[in-house]
Amino acid sequence: MSSSESIQALVLHGAKDLRLELRPQPALRPGEVQIAVKATGLCGSDLHYYHHGRNGNFVIQAPLVLGHEASGVVTAVPEIQDGAAPGSVSSSGLKIGDRVALEVGIPCRSCSLCTTGRYNLCPKLSFKSSAKTFPHADGTLQTVISHPASMCHELPENVTFEQGALVEPLAVSLHGINRSQSAGSGVGVPLVGSTALVLGAGAVGMLTAAALSVAGVSKVVIADIDAPRLKIAAGLAGGKYKLKTFLLPRRAPAPTIEETLAGAQGLATEVCHSVGLESGFDRVFECTGVPSCVQMGIFAATAGGKLVLVGMGTPTQTLPLGAAALREVDIIGVFRYANCYPAAIALFASGQLDGVAEDLVTHRVPLTDGEMAFRLAANQPKDGEDGGRVPVKVVVTS
Amino acid sequence: MSSSESIQALVLHGAKDLRLELRPQPALRPGEVQIAVKATGLCGSDLHYYHHGRNGNFVIQAPLVLGHEASGVVTAVPEIQDGAAPGSVSSSGLKIGDRVALEVGIPCRSCSLCTTGRYNLCPKLSFKSSAKTFPHADGTLQTVISHPASMCHELPENVTFEQGALVEPLAVSLHGINRSQSAGSGVGVPLVGSTALVLGAGAVGMLTAAALSVAGVSKVVIADIDAPRLKIAAGLAGGKYKLKTFLLPRRAPAPTIEETLAGAQGLATEVCHSVGLESGFDRVFECTGVPSCVQMGIFAATAGGKLVLVGMGTPTQTLPLGAAALREVDIIGVFRYANCYPAAIALFASGQLDGVAEDLVTHRVPLTDGEMAFRLAANQPKDGEDGGRVPVKVVVTS
Amino acid sequence: MSSSESIQALVLHGAKDLRLELRPQPALRPGEVQIAVKATGLCGSDLHYYHHGRNGNFVIQAPLVLGHEASGVVTAVPEIQDGAAPGSVSSSGLKIGDRVALEVGIPCRSCSLCTTGRYNLCPKLSFKSSAKTFPHADGTLQTVISHPASMCHELPENVTFEQGALVEPLAVSLHGINRSQSAGSGVGVPLVGSTALVLGAGAVGMLTAAALSVAGVSKVVIADIDAPRLKIAAGLAGGKYKLKTFLLPRRAPAPTIEETLAGAQGLATEVCHSVGLESGFDRVFECTGVPSCVQMGIFAATAGGKLVLVGMGTPTQTLPLGAAALREVDIIGVFRYANCYPAAIALFASGQLDGVAEDLVTHRVPLTDGEMAFRLAANQPKDGEDGGRVPVKVVVTS
Amino acid sequence: MSSSESIQALVLHGAKDLRLELRPQPALRPGEVQIAVKATGLCGSDLHYYHHGRNGNFVIQAPLVLGHEASGVVTAVPEIQDGAAPGSVSSSGLKIGDRVALEVGIPCRSCSLCTTGRYNLCPKLSFKSSAKTFPHADGTLQTVISHPASMCHELPENVTFEQGALVEPLAVSLHGINRSQSAGSGVGVPLVGSTALVLGAGAVGMLTAAALSVAGVSKVVIADIDAPRLKIAAGLAGGKYKLKTFLLPRRAPAPTIEETLAGAQGLATEVCHSVGLESGFDRVFECTGVPSCVQMGIFAATAGGKLVLVGMGTPTQTLPLGAAALREVDIIGVFRYANCYPAAIALFASGQLDGVAEDLVTHRVPLTDGEMAFRLAANQPKDGEDGGRVPVKVVVTS
Repeated sequence: MSSSESIQALVLHGAKDLRLELRPQPALRPGEVQIAVKATGLCGSDLHYYHHGRNGNFVIQAPLVLGHEASGVVTAVPEIQDGAAPGSVSSSGLKIGDRVALEVGIPCRSCSLCTTGRYNLCPKLSFKSSAKTFPHADGTLQTVISHPASMCHELPENVTFEQGALVEPLAVSLHGINRSQSAGSGVGVPLVGSTALVLGAGAVGMLTAAALSVAGVSKVVIADIDAPRLKIAAGLAGGKYKLKTFLLPRRAPAPTIEETLAGAQGLATEVCHSVGLESGFDRVFECTGVPSCVQMGIFAATAGGKLVLVGMGTPTQTLPLGAAALREVDIIGVFRYANCYPAAIALFASGQLDGVAEDLVTHRVPLTDGEMAFRLAANQPKDGEDGGRVPVKVVVTS
Repeated sequence: MSSSESIQALVLHGAKDLRLELRPQPALRPGEVQIAVKATGLCGSDLHYYHHGRNGNFVIQAPLVLGHEASGVVTAVPEIQDGAAPGSVSSSGLKIGDRVALEVGIPCRSCSLCTTGRYNLCPKLSFKSSAKTFPHADGTLQTVISHPASMCHELPENVTFEQGALVEPLAVSLHGINRSQSAGSGVGVPLVGSTALVLGAGAVGMLTAAALSVAGVSKVVIADIDAPRLKIAAGLAGGKYKLKTFLLPRRAPAPTIEETLAGAQGLATEVCHSVGLESGFDRVFECTGVPSCVQMGIFAATAGGKLVLVGMGTPTQTLPLGAAALREVDIIGVFRYANCYPAAIALFASGQLDGVAEDLVTHRVPLTDGEMAFRLAANQPKDGEDGGRVPVKVVVTS
Repeated sequence: MSSSESIQALVLHGAKDLRLELRPQPALRPGEVQIAVKATGLCGSDLHYYHHGRNGNFVIQAPLVLGHEASGVVTAVPEIQDGAAPGSVSSSGLKIGDRVALEVGIPCRSCSLCTTGRYNLCPKLSFKSSAKTFPHADGTLQTVISHPASMCHELPENVTFEQGALVEPLAVSLHGINRSQSAGSGVGVPLVGSTALVLGAGAVGMLTAAALSVAGVSKVVIADIDAPRLKIAAGLAGGKYKLKTFLLPRRAPAPTIEETLAGAQGLATEVCHSVGLESGFDRVFECTGVPSCVQMGIFAATAGGKLVLVGMGTPTQTLPLGAAALREVDIIGVFRYANCYPAAIALFASGQLDGVAEDLVTHRVPLTDGEMAFRLAANQPKDGEDGGRVPVKVVVTS
Repeated sequence: MSSSESIQALVLHGAKDLRLELRPQPALRPGEVQIAVKATGLCGSDLHYYHHGRNGNFVIQAPLVLGHEASGVVTAVPEIQDGAAPGSVSSSGLKIGDRVALEVGIPCRSCSLCTTGRYNLCPKLSFKSSAKTFPHADGTLQTVISHPASMCHELPENVTFEQGALVEPLAVSLHGINRSQSAGSGVGVPLVGSTALVLGAGAVGMLTAAALSVAGVSKVVIADIDAPRLKIAAGLAGGKYKLKTFLLPRRAPAPTIEETLAGAQGLATEVCHSVGLESGFDRVFECTGVPSCVQMGIFAATAGGKLVLVGMGTPTQTLPLGAAALREVDIIGVFRYANCYPAAIALFASGQLDGVAEDLVTHRVPLTDGEMAFRLAANQPKDGEDGGRVPVKVVVTS
């Protein structure tokens, strides 16, 4: 593919204004390789930009290509200058034809957060598909992209492009699990043989539940207000994770915060008792962002346990802070991931997650049908285009 | 002292109903030694019980002896049965005349929280002077007490009884510092050479600030709304800790939560800039329990930092949770302490805290003047009985 | 069973002098319950005592009952004194008929190692079946034993007595895995998606390999000089752990330490390359105690990795210390376990280890055939009494 | 200073063949700034290269400039291209006139060790002044050097160039202290109020002892075979650290390893008893590399303690491995440092180490007197050029 060729990109010009455009092929900057994108999963932030032209405080100020859960194949590498093998990027070993998962947040690599291993918090991080920085960095909903070789993680032969697209949300789960492992006192309950509650049975919730099972947690409960999603969770990968499910009631808001908290505490007790726990879960992973779930999560964690906020929703929340602090339940946030892609890929490669991608990727849509992909991801299908299946993860292919 | 002798106890019969009573000397149960109490510091929970007959949800249901920050001298040990040296408790080595600090929370020692080193969270813990359990366990505001030998921590000769009484609140500080050291990702900024903000210049706040300095933190700021307390903090131990102070404004509540949070964020920026920090403090220790301080604490912590809730106040609080979670600022509670007495004593013994007790213990009152002690501790002195000194820590002597 | 009844005990009077004796039933001391022992696995230390009358420096000075990998059923509980439910030990909730795994090391519970969660290192620990302390504490090779209720871990219905007997060696594995998780810099490679090498395919090596797999390690290699044992490992639990095996060569000792180390380094490189690793394993678990394996383990660990010494053998060893220190490969010892029984039981209860006990417990021998049990455990069967099966774990039943 | 100007460099052409040469000023590569070197401390590895033309396995294959403990002042920054302020390197904020400490190990920044915070272990790390890589990277014994801006750590006004030169060895100490903090079980004894033994009273040993004191360790013992060095240690910074000293005996080697180990154990007991410790030190920092000290260090650590190998010497050593493993004394190596310069600078800036540089920097020699500097560093002065002072740290100035 020569640099004079053009590529296709799905460009968002404003709320619900998505256009398939031809663009010149992107140039390779130093350290970059060229990738033909094969699969991109759509996620909640993509949907926010699509529907509202913004995601929280980040407003698109110029046309933006969305997509950041992506895999592809290397189609070009820089000219060799220093004696490295032909067809390879000397620093990374990547060569044409290699299959990769793309990690699209590019950190500065030299600030103290980067050099201490927490590059996800780098203040200069540029995340492709986000409108946080300007000029915006385009995401992966295009046929070809240039990307730093060091942020391309090689996929073994037995990992599919769809699994490769799930590496990103799985990395979020793994980062949350890692963050839950030691905290506060330097003493943490080991994962193996422990208990965990996952609030929210979306793609990240289910990946978190599967990852917890694979990590040795012996009792994993997943809770949601949506029975069909719980059914998918229970049967995930043929049911091999033995996830227990708990249906949360759809309740009208309580008139006072006291009643709200009493309700949250009651539900927490119920979910604990449903699996024979008296004192609570060692870890709670909150994947909804809904305040009532965060509140319930505090009560559902055992003394000395952890509440991990995997999904951030409402930025300001009223919490039973005393119930957390006085029982030393640490409240731990998760902002994307750092150093989690290799482990996520290893889990897919080893077969530990076989069957998961098949159950989570419910719909595949070509890049040329971008609007349909976003309709499905929002669970607003036209005319049965969902094939009668509850959408969990929609993957755009090219 | 024979077991037929009587002792004096300061007994709370209800709100503001404090009586000095004669009681029979307490018997020694297995594993216990008898202690002549020499000094007891008064703390906030003692004051709550004294003024309201309750502390939060815990209401006194029977006459209760308060006091839990105590030191004393061993006056009797059990009969020897198994060949141990005369005058000693075989399992602990304590002998008559030994000077000790009392750790008054008695855990079960066999639940999983106890055996994993977190005995402060033991669900069966009995804390002397608290009305949480019934029958209540009497505290140290008496001339003599029986106490498990294993919870009596020997004081070296050069540690005074007043320092011994400060071991308890210092243990709270050390536990908070320990809990701040590793968290979330298993990666923590080392204390040495780091930065910390302490919110609240009461006794625990000042001990926390001193302990942080001794632990190698290079820049410690202590903030309060009370200028005289900040002056004490700045001059603590002759000013050797070089604590920087920040006067918080006394503000009327803002009409909306948005404005409240904006104000908290503004103050956080101010306190950071006051010491040349751009991105925030590595650790924030909240020692007030006031929601506006907790909110400010979240904003004042750097990305990847820790907010430690040392003082719990309002049990339900509205927080800028997104500002914590998205920057991976962990919110870490502190419930008393575990395994912190030996280190606290070592700090006093080594001279690292020389001068601190002298500055913090502003008033000494004999047990026979109990009401005066509580007046002073509440900063409501009569007729200049405070000697013109701002009360920080009031110690009851016997 | 009344206290006047007698019990059977397999008593070691000296090297190879094992006698089945009738003894009066042991009395219940405070906090103890009475257990009818159902299954006891034999381990290497039992064999040392049996064959040599000693284990390392610990010499039997009086008749000793061996056995410490045990499960059983509660047959008596103390008289109730304080209003607890009839038939229960108030502090533990145990009642007659409960099935339990016995943790036989009894710590003091009040020294600093106990209160910080490392009770396995308690200097006063009394370990039943060991001759370290005198008078010796008898082990579980008897029909009935009295044991502290707090050291009896309840087995759920679906955990067999044989699995219960494996809880002890599995606890060793889990303790080693826990100790490998954070170290040195506070930064550790998470287990999930990582790589591990297990040296030694005995019972502990295979349990370690299985536990690592269950804990999310994606690539586990187990190495041994014995091909039949590697075959068992490869097929463990129907092969579901996909353990990779590596046959170590039986080599004559090299004439010099330089050649010995060169050989160890060469083998380390080979085992890494056998699974496509260039830089080494994240963790190495040494379960043989043989110096050549410890040496190889240092070389086989990646920079920043861990070498966990699960099996201690030769007390004085010559090591390539520079190869460890300069690559920050931490050398981490394991002394039994602390707080690992609940997780071990949870793993059996959840089904995560289904099939493991069936493969590891190769022989079952009644207590009345004690000598045969020790012959089998030493792999010195008479007349085909091994049924043609390589002994891995021999369980004595009663 | 224009790029046509020449600089002076002290170049090692072979063992003891040191030449002061004029060289063209080094060009600035992308991301680099130009530094006028002001002070360089000499260390043991410099001495090895000087005396033997090699350091362990690393042989100089071409003329090499030594020196890596350095500070200086920024004399040139790259041309501005992207709108940053004139005179600044946009990514780092450095400007002409800034005073800096140089971190001379340049990691790749993108391998997994770099991105997880352990860049000191980066396999591609290039360390200036070392002959490990070829072409060799020249060190700081020259008047001017080009260096990556991100590896130049700004020195506050109140930190001297000599303190700046000590930042490097202090970083080694801090890295060792950091690595000792959590290990093995995830449970570590906090530094504050703990005990530590430092073996070796050279510059790194004394900096380690000072840093431990500043980090809150309450009892620090430093041991050496050299009484004059112990005297310096005891009086370090006016004696404010209250370091206790222990004179190690100069002994002929014992004939057998058993006797050697018995001697090491005896000395360990002695040093513990000298400060009233019964069970050993929480941490031992071995700063000599001598096997007898490593052996003693294992015995001197308490059960559950840490032995940190700060100074690596003999690469192959015979150790009482059982005495470490069975007591869970972790053996932790230290390879230089990662992320330690900022804390080291903060300690100097805060005044916590005031007086240390004055005591440790015993000699200052201009770059033009290079051979004298190396003579002094080796403690082989001519004609009283040492001024009668025991050399601890020799600093070369320019």
